[in-house]
Amino acid sequence: MENEKFKVTPWEVSGKIDYKKLVEYFGVDEMSDSLIKRFPQQHFMLRRKIFYAHRDLDFILDEHEKGTKFYLYTGRGPSGKTHMGHLLPWIFNKYLQDTFKVELYFQITDDEKFLFNEKLTLEDTKKLAYDNALDVIALGFDPGKTTIFLDTENANVLYPLAIKIAKKITFSTTKAVFGFTNSTNIGSIFYTSMQSVPAFLLSELESRRVPCLIPCAIDQDPHFRVTRDVAESLGYYKPASMYCKLLPGLLGNEKMSSSQPESSIFTTDDEATVRKKIVNTFTGGAVSIKEQRLHGGNPDICSVHSYLYFFFEQDDKKLNEMYSRCRSGDLLCGECKEILIGKVNRFLKKHQKGREKAKDNITKFVKKIEVK
Amino acid sequence: MENEKFKVTPWEVSGKIDYKKLVEYFGVDEMSDSLIKRFPQQHFMLRRKIFYAHRDLDFILDEHEKGTKFYLYTGRGPSGKTHMGHLLPWIFNKYLQDTFKVELYFQITDDEKFLFNEKLTLEDTKKLAYDNALDVIALGFDPGKTTIFLDTENANVLYPLAIKIAKKITFSTTKAVFGFTNSTNIGSIFYTSMQSVPAFLLSELESRRVPCLIPCAIDQDPHFRVTRDVAESLGYYKPASMYCKLLPGLLGNEKMSSSQPESSIFTTDDEATVRKKIVNTFTGGAVSIKEQRLHGGNPDICSVHSYLYFFFEQDDKKLNEMYSRCRSGDLLCGECKEILIGKVNRFLKKHQKGREKAKDNITKFVKKIEVK
Repeated sequence: MENEKFKVTPWEVSGKIDYKKLVEYFGVDEMSDSLIKRFPQQHFMLRRKIFYAHRDLDFILDEHEKGTKFYLYTGRGPSGKTHMGHLLPWIFNKYLQDTFKVELYFQITDDEKFLFNEKLTLEDTKKLAYDNALDVIALGFDPGKTTIFLDTENANVLYPLAIKIAKKITFSTTKAVFGFTNSTNIGSIFYTSMQSVPAFLLSELESRRVPCLIPCAIDQDPHFRVTRDVAESLGYYKPASMYCKLLPGLLGNEKMSSSQPESSIFTTDDEATVRKKIVNTFTGGAVSIKEQRLHGGNPDICSVHSYLYFFFEQDDKKLNEMYSRCRSGDLLCGECKEILIGKVNRFLKKHQKGREKAKDNITKFVKKIEVK
Repeated sequence: MENEKFKVTPWEVSGKIDYKKLVEYFGVDEMSDSLIKRFPQQHFMLRRKIFYAHRDLDFILDEHEKGTKFYLYTGRGPSGKTHMGHLLPWIFNKYLQDTFKVELYFQITDDEKFLFNEKLTLEDTKKLAYDNALDVIALGFDPGKTTIFLDTENANVLYPLAIKIAKKITFSTTKAVFGFTNSTNIGSIFYTSMQSVPAFLLSELESRRVPCLIPCAIDQDPHFRVTRDVAESLGYYKPASMYCKLLPGLLGNEKMSSSQPESSIFTTDDEATVRKKIVNTFTGGAVSIKEQRLHGGNPDICSVHSYLYFFFEQDDKKLNEMYSRCRSGDLLCGECKEILIGKVNRFLKKHQKGREKAKDNITKFVKKIEVK
């Protein structure tokens, strides 16, 4: 999706995203309060509508309430190191796995990132895939219910299903949905079929229709629109999806970007690096302390506040208090940054330990998909 | 390639093929007498220039004479039962394997035939793949030097290499080479990369450049033009190729066709079916016996003669004698047809025994490609 103000595709996000408009453009539904109430626990990403849009989530909840098993599918395109923006939807998947006791298929698209990035070799993306997997594992998923898989290592299972999907998608469709041109390479053109496969995988493996829920960032919706269009003619359910907003960059941009390292907090950043990045963060502060004490700051445009809102202050009461104190000029940027630095470094210390431990457990998670 | 008179693409052959023109259109080289003389034995398909065109065959023979190992790659698109037209290039591959003591990689493109045929399921093409493989095995290939493989069963090896190729091919290229349009499905668009892979497979498996020779029918050249264009930038040799003419149909058409069963002799046809088909064959006979005795027949337009020429009379002296006797009005169509019926049925009796025996040996030939 592209207009003059912003652009959101699976491969490029730029400009100031209007999430309301995106809902219209993509044709997804906004999360309603009544839907959110149907979740056994109110995760903060639901309460705050960080996961703010969906397709057919009511179907998944209906099936769950009837006692039908569903499964989760999400993934990662391994184009660089993992940053906080990547972790958010994975953390939400972990909450869903714990809450509903469901299986998760986690696709690492080493083929995609190779095909869409001129500079990355397949060896690069495969190496990044294994590194990124450590971050997934570190979040504490249940090894008995989680399969992390690389596309190129599971092509025996994925490719035969991908061509069944591909046979139903024309080049015209990919032009319209992804903006491809005659100069697009034929691997990239085919790729969306590979991203569709996990939405049908459990149905294929179990030879019966199994509902699938895809919780991920909103920029991936174009793929799943295509997936949904072909689903029923192949005898599968349309996958449902839940979409989150994108964690803004530290420099006031709309999405963290691996190509702009100072705008992102990577999971492997050390304490000093985190401090330096947050100290340099774009805030909603006034031009001077005096000015700020007088008129207050603007947390609505502040990256520090965004980080607290999106993840680091999950207590609504505390967050609102900080918001008010900022508005009133009581909480200055320096103090607020110190709070965030402390929270980020505590989180990363634990996460980095988890990454180290994950190295010993990697084969429990990164698996060949088993044909049952 | 398409002009007003004929069309030759990997998926459609129609009209009266002008093989001289095809050489120009495709930009291949005709087989020269000096090249043919470099073969240790003069196979009748070389002498008669049934294998009449090539790319870089001199490179393969140079390498062979220097003591460098090369390998053969050919294949089959499993869209129906095997007929005599399919067997011809395989028989030639067997001669090359025996003569040069080289490995053969035989690709069965169950993905291709599924993607390009609206009516075939992947289950259909996979079943046909195993049936067609019996015909390959029945020809007597060396099991120690032959790997027959299905694309969908070897995607773990093929897909990662196919995307390296695909990254270098744009949709524009496939439009120009194959005539694809915006309505072509994205699996078909990607497919040519899968057909390129075996040309580089041994180089990839052995981590060094191994020359590859592709002996097949001329209609497959468009794929290998693309393969050759990307080869060097991926660090491989361009594959060489040898192209044969297409065995004409029994009804005077230019190619045997599985969709017109009466125009083809299938390897599983029984004696009575063969007799019936050959009795009904289009010949170069005159309107009456009297007329033919007086003015002779025309073997140049005769399907019975074509069958003798392409395979069933490999003795040049005997073939020339039949040609002259036809021209002079001495050999009538009925007698000539009886000769062909006898030869075809003797060949098929042996071949069908070979097919039965092949069922016990199939796992010696149809293998997973081993990553060394």
